[in-house]
Amino acid sequence: MSNATEQWGLLNIELKGPDNGNPFAEVQLSATFRNGETSLTVPGFYDGDGTYRMRFMPPEQGEWTFRTTSNAAELDGRSGVLECVAPSDDNHGPVHVRNKFHFAYTDGTSFFPFGTTCYAWAHQGNELEAQTLETLKSAGFNKVRMCVFPKDYIFNKNEPVHHPFEKNSDGSWDFSRYNVEFFRHFEKRVAQVGELGIEADIILFHPYDRWGYATMAQEEDYAYLRYVVARLAAYRHVWWSMANEYDFMLKEKPMQVWDRFFEIVRENDPYNHLRSIHNGRFEDSYDHTRDDVTHACVQHWDVKRMREWRGMYGKPVIDDECEYEGNIIRNWGNISARELVHRFWISVCYGGYAGHGETYEHEKDILWWSKGGVLHGESAPRIAFLRGIVAKSAPDGIEPLEGEFPWDRTAAGQSGDTLLIYFGEHQPKHFGDGLPKKGRYKVDLIDTWNMAIDTLNDTFEGQTPIELPGRPYMAMRIRMIR
Amino acid sequence: MSNATEQWGLLNIELKGPDNGNPFAEVQLSATFRNGETSLTVPGFYDGDGTYRMRFMPPEQGEWTFRTTSNAAELDGRSGVLECVAPSDDNHGPVHVRNKFHFAYTDGTSFFPFGTTCYAWAHQGNELEAQTLETLKSAGFNKVRMCVFPKDYIFNKNEPVHHPFEKNSDGSWDFSRYNVEFFRHFEKRVAQVGELGIEADIILFHPYDRWGYATMAQEEDYAYLRYVVARLAAYRHVWWSMANEYDFMLKEKPMQVWDRFFEIVRENDPYNHLRSIHNGRFEDSYDHTRDDVTHACVQHWDVKRMREWRGMYGKPVIDDECEYEGNIIRNWGNISARELVHRFWISVCYGGYAGHGETYEHEKDILWWSKGGVLHGESAPRIAFLRGIVAKSAPDGIEPLEGEFPWDRTAAGQSGDTLLIYFGEHQPKHFGDGLPKKGRYKVDLIDTWNMAIDTLNDTFEGQTPIELPGRPYMAMRIRMIR
Repeated sequence: MSNATEQWGLLNIELKGPDNGNPFAEVQLSATFRNGETSLTVPGFYDGDGTYRMRFMPPEQGEWTFRTTSNAAELDGRSGVLECVAPSDDNHGPVHVRNKFHFAYTDGTSFFPFGTTCYAWAHQGNELEAQTLETLKSAGFNKVRMCVFPKDYIFNKNEPVHHPFEKNSDGSWDFSRYNVEFFRHFEKRVAQVGELGIEADIILFHPYDRWGYATMAQEEDYAYLRYVVARLAAYRHVWWSMANEYDFMLKEKPMQVWDRFFEIVRENDPYNHLRSIHNGRFEDSYDHTRDDVTHACVQHWDVKRMREWRGMYGKPVIDDECEYEGNIIRNWGNISARELVHRFWISVCYGGYAGHGETYEHEKDILWWSKGGVLHGESAPRIAFLRGIVAKSAPDGIEPLEGEFPWDRTAAGQSGDTLLIYFGEHQPKHFGDGLPKKGRYKVDLIDTWNMAIDTLNDTFEGQTPIELPGRPYMAMRIRMIR
Repeated sequence: MSNATEQWGLLNIELKGPDNGNPFAEVQLSATFRNGETSLTVPGFYDGDGTYRMRFMPPEQGEWTFRTTSNAAELDGRSGVLECVAPSDDNHGPVHVRNKFHFAYTDGTSFFPFGTTCYAWAHQGNELEAQTLETLKSAGFNKVRMCVFPKDYIFNKNEPVHHPFEKNSDGSWDFSRYNVEFFRHFEKRVAQVGELGIEADIILFHPYDRWGYATMAQEEDYAYLRYVVARLAAYRHVWWSMANEYDFMLKEKPMQVWDRFFEIVRENDPYNHLRSIHNGRFEDSYDHTRDDVTHACVQHWDVKRMREWRGMYGKPVIDDECEYEGNIIRNWGNISARELVHRFWISVCYGGYAGHGETYEHEKDILWWSKGGVLHGESAPRIAFLRGIVAKSAPDGIEPLEGEFPWDRTAAGQSGDTLLIYFGEHQPKHFGDGLPKKGRYKVDLIDTWNMAIDTLNDTFEGQTPIELPGRPYMAMRIRMIR
């Protein structure tokens, strides 16, 4: 066997092996990949019809060798060589934490998560799924939260096209036998998201279920996790989210089970992708300070608490559900576009990140937040506008200003020599307090709703008050002139 | 002597006495008023030129007798009779706490504080003061926060017309000799506010000072308090606020001094008018649970914490400074009208009260919040609209709904059989969760900004979702049909 792939690309190794009994449960397979001093052990998985696969994402360029280990003779001791070449232009590797509260791709390129939520989009059939991908292509988001399991909830009563498990002869689900059609399909959607340059924040469990996926036995949960991780970990754009609203499953899965989920994912993922867990009630949040948690995923409407959360967790904070733009009957899904954009600006200027979702009533119950399709709202382009400003102004991430007047009530942060100040519901005619005491600077007035940046002709020095338009939802960027 | 006044009216008793030495400091005078079993002891005060006054607000109708006590022979043992008759139509007596978290006039008429702030309006000269009164006549507020002492602060650099103290021969102030012109003038303004049906929330100390009023010796503070209380307590519409931002004076006046201020006011005010104290930093709030504090006065922008404060203090809560409508450079004074109206609705639906203030930049530095004049903003009529709704819908005051979904994120309260729900930044197309499980009801849709009440033709029963306009800043009133 000889193969080639680019750094952080995905190498597929296919082997034929036993197809009797339950290969998912009975056959163990892994391979160790070596390149000089570096070695990684990668789990394999059964893909039906006697086919076994191992997927490898080479973290370094050069020649790699591998050798398999298995309890099945046909799969044991197989070996090969692969050549890993330089990554292509749009391949920056997986995203990891950088500068304590922020993120970057492995090659050092900054990454600022501006994600959206389409929980069950990959279970809606080809037509709608194609439309979702088309929407994602230009919506401006670079992360999408998506569930492995289909969803049962208000507006989500349709049966998925594929089911993740095989059935027993009595019609019940056999949670130890995976439906490879389901996983191949899901995986294709994950891959397509990656091709759009979007990180896939993969949600491994959730409580909105009528099939029994949320209430499997613990050993079934563990085996399922190993299977998903073996299939998907080699995609560089994968993030692991243990659950959507894990705390609504605490009865069936007590806290130590969630701890174990984190361990299993970490142990089986040789690339150490980002790991988080999402709460329902904020009061029941998981202990995000634990080592296995790479960043805090928060559900809370009150983004003005962002600095508090940064302090509590000492990690990047993404408020992935600060309520959604929409008009449905539930309060978590009916804030105005203006309010969601407002919450994004506050989150970001306070040194954190927020998540988008959209929940407008729809005659066919096709709500973006869960099924995808098209966007009906007004927040997405404004969020993309903010993303562009952050990417340009704050390559190392924004650190919030705090404590001292006037920063106690103005969402403002700093990145190097650039200050980004968001006034929100405030509408000063002048801004003076808090301007740099030394140096000269250029000032941009930013209309966050109309997406306009007005660079003032003057340069400023000292604490000369700057005239502002005196209307709400404005921001200001101050750049030092060297 | 014989006099007549109405119940809760103001009786002035004038006596001539010594004018040598320092009568303010050296002459003690009080009178005890009796009517059957009831007796009240009322402090007198010196009003210059050998004139001493005692003012009495009879709390009951009938014949009252009085007898004076003084260390000056001419003032001691003087007595008289007065007839107290029924109050006139617009006289409901002083306001007190009712139903733990709310207020009412003494005759039982509900009182819902919808106040504004004009800290130094009574020190601006007759022309501007007349304009302020004219504005107050129709602005819709029923309480005004006003300082005894003139103010020195940004936008407040003009010298007051009158000064509260006499000068020593060396030009320094003599804090033991009151300028009766100043107090007669201040008192006239207080009385005029009362004639408009507006409660005067009188602020006794504040830190914004260049004359030394904030840093007098403790005994001077105590004497000043006794003097002000003796002059003003007989006005039925007076409330006592120990300070504006008392915590910025803690260095000169440590906590036990503030405790003592409360005691002195209580001991010298026979009518037990409402007493509160206002903080700068919320973290430095006075202990509002103390017995001498009748209601909690809060300064905090985050009115969504109103239920928390009710729980902390177990008393009525007025967020008298939830930031002001305006556009000045300071964040406490530059929120939009829409945001202030929003904060009023949240405060009220969560069972509390809020305060208005207006701070638009002005070419002559005439900002309503401190100097009065005219209103330039848009919030006042909307606040008056809300006041009208509360007065009509919640005679006993609003108790907030809490804890259970969906009330954790919708500002909503109940008064008897009426529910008042404010959606704010939420814009549901339907409302269902949280509707009454039993009974039939009428529904009003309220546009809080456009001040429109749309009573739906249908009556509703059970938890049938109600169609809403799907735009923000709406409210809903649900009235049970008996």
